[in-house]
Amino acid sequence: MMSGRLYGLGVGPGDPELITVKALRLLKGAPVVAYFVAKGKRGNAFGIIESHLNDAQTRLPLVYPVTTEALEPPLCYETIISAFYDESALAIADHLEAGRDVAVICEGDPFFYGSYMYLHDRLAGRFDAHVVPGVCSMLGGVAVMGLPLVYRNQSLSVLSGVLLDTELKIKLENADAAVIMKLGRNFNKVRRVLTELGLDKRAHYIERATMANQRIVSLDEVDPMASPYFSLLVVPGKKWQA
Amino acid sequence: MMSGRLYGLGVGPGDPELITVKALRLLKGAPVVAYFVAKGKRGNAFGIIESHLNDAQTRLPLVYPVTTEALEPPLCYETIISAFYDESALAIADHLEAGRDVAVICEGDPFFYGSYMYLHDRLAGRFDAHVVPGVCSMLGGVAVMGLPLVYRNQSLSVLSGVLLDTELKIKLENADAAVIMKLGRNFNKVRRVLTELGLDKRAHYIERATMANQRIVSLDEVDPMASPYFSLLVVPGKKWQA
Repeated sequence: MMSGRLYGLGVGPGDPELITVKALRLLKGAPVVAYFVAKGKRGNAFGIIESHLNDAQTRLPLVYPVTTEALEPPLCYETIISAFYDESALAIADHLEAGRDVAVICEGDPFFYGSYMYLHDRLAGRFDAHVVPGVCSMLGGVAVMGLPLVYRNQSLSVLSGVLLDTELKIKLENADAAVIMKLGRNFNKVRRVLTELGLDKRAHYIERATMANQRIVSLDEVDPMASPYFSLLVVPGKKWQA
Repeated sequence: MMSGRLYGLGVGPGDPELITVKALRLLKGAPVVAYFVAKGKRGNAFGIIESHLNDAQTRLPLVYPVTTEALEPPLCYETIISAFYDESALAIADHLEAGRDVAVICEGDPFFYGSYMYLHDRLAGRFDAHVVPGVCSMLGGVAVMGLPLVYRNQSLSVLSGVLLDTELKIKLENADAAVIMKLGRNFNKVRRVLTELGLDKRAHYIERATMANQRIVSLDEVDPMASPYFSLLVVPGKKWQA
């Protein structure tokens, strides 16, 4: 018997219409649909595509064992999450070995900070794996804010808010445009670095870009204790006066 | 009479199925479809979506007046291209003022190095303008090569091959992952910098990602005199062993 195929399907940043025609076709044809989800939640990626599924398709939720990376010893995030990805890969491999295709749906793009990458690294050597790229949250964000991101020969830095302020500073100094993801509790630190570099006036903030509960506010209005994980800071490139 | 709406529609990197459901819906409903095109060519973006158009839709090709940025004095690329964008914006404004919506189709994403940005800057203040984000070529490229691009808290630098080698070096040293666009005649310079930094072994090359004539070859096999504009070098982030 032939093994099933593994699909990593980008479903876009949140607006259900921002899925590609290709991802939608493969999603509808997949006998098994897998998705990552936080404990007790429905799953952002699943919410985006749920209306397209039929009853005959098997849902395979992959429930994160932890809700934060900041764990108290002896708990170790890396150890726990690694075991979780191992188990998730085994659950998917069972379906693939039985000849069933599995579509793993991914918010945004699968290879752009997506959890799918950890399944791909575990399974793509053994099974036929295909990735369908998606619209990433960064491009969803600048589209709804009406902010051209990078002109002509400008460079773009995509950074994580968890970086040390010294690292953020060096990387921001060397970029014409920047996008900072994973803000959450790092918001105050990032805002301080932007201010020190004189970039705060050029920066724009958005939460849950393209989703129904999207929110665009000025940097001063952000509650640094309540900035969600799905928030972005964008410093667009300076307008090129062509 | 109400003015028409301006739409900047990302149509994805080349595979016609990588257009979003939203861009396809707005494209089909647009009375005027505008697109940039090189003299004597059919246009990459137009080729991606042509099969979806009907005879009643007006085609508005915007033909670039030059085919290279390297012009001999007294010709000046900036002056010529600026006048061209002015004229293009006027042609679109005529339709918008007459109450007709205009969809400008953009290969990849409109705000990620897209020529649409120059129209948006000229028209979005006067008319109702909406941007639909698209799958960018960089994410199309890593998807078809099967290369996870950025893990967890890694940073990504997107760079233009026209940068000086000293600039390229600084920016590449400060990134965990990198994508270098606009190679063309800059290929040899970029390869030399990557080699000096010991990054050449981690680099991957692709031409026309997701298009019918896509080509993936090793860096040694690239003809530096014939590397097309739509080629990419990708240095993916190191695998995070979760």
